[in-house]
Amino acid sequence: MNATEDLLARVALTWLTEPGTWSVHRLVDRLGPPATLDLLLGGGAPDERLAATVAARLHAGDPRAAASEAVTRTDRLGARIVTPGDEEWPVRLGDLSRLVLPGASRKVDLETAPPLCIWVRGGWPLADVLDRSVAVVGARAATGYGLHVATDIGYGLADRDWTVVSGGAFGIDAAAHRGALNAGGVTVSVLACGLDRPYPMGNAALFDRIAETGLLVSEWLPGAEPLRPRFLIRNRVIAAGTRGSVLVEAAARSGATQTMHRAVAMGRPAMVVPGPVTSAMSVGAHELLREQRDARLVTGVAHVLEEVGRIGTDLAPPARGPDRPTDTLDDEATMLRESMPRRGTIGADALAARAGVPVRTALRKLALLEELGLVTRRDAGYALAPPPGQR
Amino acid sequence: MNATEDLLARVALTWLTEPGTWSVHRLVDRLGPPATLDLLLGGGAPDERLAATVAARLHAGDPRAAASEAVTRTDRLGARIVTPGDEEWPVRLGDLSRLVLPGASRKVDLETAPPLCIWVRGGWPLADVLDRSVAVVGARAATGYGLHVATDIGYGLADRDWTVVSGGAFGIDAAAHRGALNAGGVTVSVLACGLDRPYPMGNAALFDRIAETGLLVSEWLPGAEPLRPRFLIRNRVIAAGTRGSVLVEAAARSGATQTMHRAVAMGRPAMVVPGPVTSAMSVGAHELLREQRDARLVTGVAHVLEEVGRIGTDLAPPARGPDRPTDTLDDEATMLRESMPRRGTIGADALAARAGVPVRTALRKLALLEELGLVTRRDAGYALAPPPGQR
Repeated sequence: MNATEDLLARVALTWLTEPGTWSVHRLVDRLGPPATLDLLLGGGAPDERLAATVAARLHAGDPRAAASEAVTRTDRLGARIVTPGDEEWPVRLGDLSRLVLPGASRKVDLETAPPLCIWVRGGWPLADVLDRSVAVVGARAATGYGLHVATDIGYGLADRDWTVVSGGAFGIDAAAHRGALNAGGVTVSVLACGLDRPYPMGNAALFDRIAETGLLVSEWLPGAEPLRPRFLIRNRVIAAGTRGSVLVEAAARSGATQTMHRAVAMGRPAMVVPGPVTSAMSVGAHELLREQRDARLVTGVAHVLEEVGRIGTDLAPPARGPDRPTDTLDDEATMLRESMPRRGTIGADALAARAGVPVRTALRKLALLEELGLVTRRDAGYALAPPPGQR
Repeated sequence: MNATEDLLARVALTWLTEPGTWSVHRLVDRLGPPATLDLLLGGGAPDERLAATVAARLHAGDPRAAASEAVTRTDRLGARIVTPGDEEWPVRLGDLSRLVLPGASRKVDLETAPPLCIWVRGGWPLADVLDRSVAVVGARAATGYGLHVATDIGYGLADRDWTVVSGGAFGIDAAAHRGALNAGGVTVSVLACGLDRPYPMGNAALFDRIAETGLLVSEWLPGAEPLRPRFLIRNRVIAAGTRGSVLVEAAARSGATQTMHRAVAMGRPAMVVPGPVTSAMSVGAHELLREQRDARLVTGVAHVLEEVGRIGTDLAPPARGPDRPTDTLDDEATMLRESMPRRGTIGADALAARAGVPVRTALRKLALLEELGLVTRRDAGYALAPPPGQR
């Protein structure tokens, strides 16, 4: 990885301050990452809280050294660091600046700025994968009912080529990831710790499968521990990075319901699966449906797609650069590319049928797509090409 | 029973036309029942549909004879016929004239007029019993979950001195009634047939218990059969006669969901208990919560009481006559009377404690209440006196 000064400064700032800090985000917006780093290291933190954080971290080490080391460790992990300038940066995260929680304390507010950079492990471009994505969140201590429903929704979403995003926790998170994996779909686990130590360890095999066929994502440096407050900070990325969030089971006042409130605050569909009123694991879900006027009751994947598929729900359509290869594609080539399976290969005949394009035309357009580096030809057929950085 | 001309005409009109017919209701409003009967018997029906109904019924017999016979049978049943002039007429039913169902066909509209008269069997004044009442409705083919929840809500309502109103059907209806009975509370079964043949027969023992300690209610003459359309006509009385309706389980497009739409149309709280999305018996409930913006998710009796207990939900407070004995009571006597159990007896000490009144005062006020005929003294303590017509 060719680490630029900008990237190194972003990593150093992430190490020096906790992700999501508004004061840092604003400085970076105004001065850029290197100058912000210089300012903070020179004692120029704009508020006392940030100054205290910086001072405390400086006791632990040198931010520039930590950043260099993080870049090396990231490379060794086969992962990459994505920054706002990159094509695969999810523009959708910009909606976090719209996030004004009703009655939120300043402390909570301070923790909701967009990430400075994101660690990604896996073969797909982050932005593309999140463009058609739904978060599925819920209780760790889920019931058999909740696990069943989450698996079902994860499967159904993946089966319809939607990315399933969750947090990799036990219970509902894991069930949603597994449902997506079972459908051969793409699933993204957004971690609250370094990519090299996905938490919880008990889901290690699951994380390995996700890294192989989907993405592991984090805004913390390799080696970062899954500290308790990080889960809540992480949740905003799950809410902001997706088109909508589905809550399956939650006890009263759980972290998952907080993700839902954030989704609502950003104008994203907040969908809640009800459950038996006799179950403690339904309490949070029902509370949300009773108290959050914008929360929507859903009973399955059909209702979820109804919500996220709606025109107008995508408040921040990803601003695409003008020189992407896909911009040059005609309708047929676009249809073919969009009909490609997210994972694995497909024969030209099958793809043509799926896209509703004559086979002869399909073969011609596939050659074009291959030339543009969007599709690769393999023994078993055609496959989507890995993102530019991963070839 | 001293059957007046007015009452006989109302019974004859109920026999001659189906309850709920708006054209008949309007004629009665304008001309009174005897003149309306004369008009219809003289061939003066204001529309063809009503004329056809009248002609068909006249083939089956003579309305005045049918009315006389009904009065006799009613007496023999130990039941009574309540008309709008009576003190125990539930004024709340007048809200049916506010019932404009969105998109309702004229046919449906025609069937929603208030009843001309109501058959009642049981020891309590109908209006008093309905004044603090909640309808609990739902599927006949309920699941164990639904039966559990309905029983629980029925018990909880009765335990807090609310009347539980339902339709006496298998499943949720029966569970709600049973819950109320188990709490020693008052429950009202609104039938879609004559009081002498409560339907379904399989609930005969339940109906007997209800008649003993609560009320059986119908707007059909003794002997009337439980014809299919009558259940939907009956449902409007359940919705209009109560402060709010709770739906526990319902399949898609069920009769119970129709009761809920009617409750909403009258501005009454329409409360829905969610369930597992994996159950077909949850479909109607979740549909209602998704489609009916005014439907409210409730998970138990506390939520139900929150809804029906709200100031302002009672759109038509029962207009009380000026010369009721209760109007003369002071605060302490009122508290004591309202603290009486709906059923059974209570000792003066226990009642005083319940009402928060010194025992000596309680004894004095109880003597007054006894004198006014509001309370009776029995071996085991004090009990509410049966209604005036039932002594």
